[in-house]
Amino acid sequence: MHAFLLIAHGSRRAASNDEVRALANQIANEAEDQFDQLACCFLELAEPLIPDAINNLVENGATQITLFPYFLAVGAHVAEDIPEAITEAKEQHPQVQFHMLPHLGKLASMPRLILDQLSS
Amino acid sequence: MHAFLLIAHGSRRAASNDEVRALANQIANEAEDQFDQLACCFLELAEPLIPDAINNLVENGATQITLFPYFLAVGAHVAEDIPEAITEAKEQHPQVQFHMLPHLGKLASMPRLILDQLSS
Repeated sequence: MHAFLLIAHGSRRAASNDEVRALANQIANEAEDQFDQLACCFLELAEPLIPDAINNLVENGATQITLFPYFLAVGAHVAEDIPEAITEAKEQHPQVQFHMLPHLGKLASMPRLILDQLSS
Repeated sequence: MHAFLLIAHGSRRAASNDEVRALANQIANEAEDQFDQLACCFLELAEPLIPDAINNLVENGATQITLFPYFLAVGAHVAEDIPEAITEAKEQHPQVQFHMLPHLGKLASMPRLILDQLSS
């Protein structure tokens, strides 16, 4: 069973965290059968945190989890904090396959996404 | 003359600011004739700041500037700080048309962008 986990930074502003949750719902709505479970989680300041979200996915049967850092730039969060959290999760769930996607700002399609916006 | 201005937060990490500049260059490379000038700027912590970037575009002949907040969520920066800076720029350059795009996290194509990444 394949799960998708969007990892956002988390904010003190509830509205910002709700924007992330709404995005996760939109992804789930558009995804059809690309994966069996979808969740979002936060590095800090909002819940669920990364370990709790992963535990929940695994309890619900995930055997493969694709992780997507919803971050614009490589900072300490993308380079260190998230990989550390995933290393711990791997130790806790050795039977689960984890696959980390590039962070959002790194996606090759980002320039095109922005240009399409400009011309619409 | 139509200019496109990408507005990022700015970081104390030079590498993060360079990621934004590289993205702006990629957009310029892919844009062909969608606009005449492209620049990026920063709300704080990096240069050029918003007013300097706008002054530069206008000095180079921009009569229409499309602004794109490269932010994931609506916080005080997107809701207040950027509009304030643009209001000041409008007063300083009344002959220039400014058009603000939705911030990155709000783009309707974001879920599809992420899903395409997942399946690639």
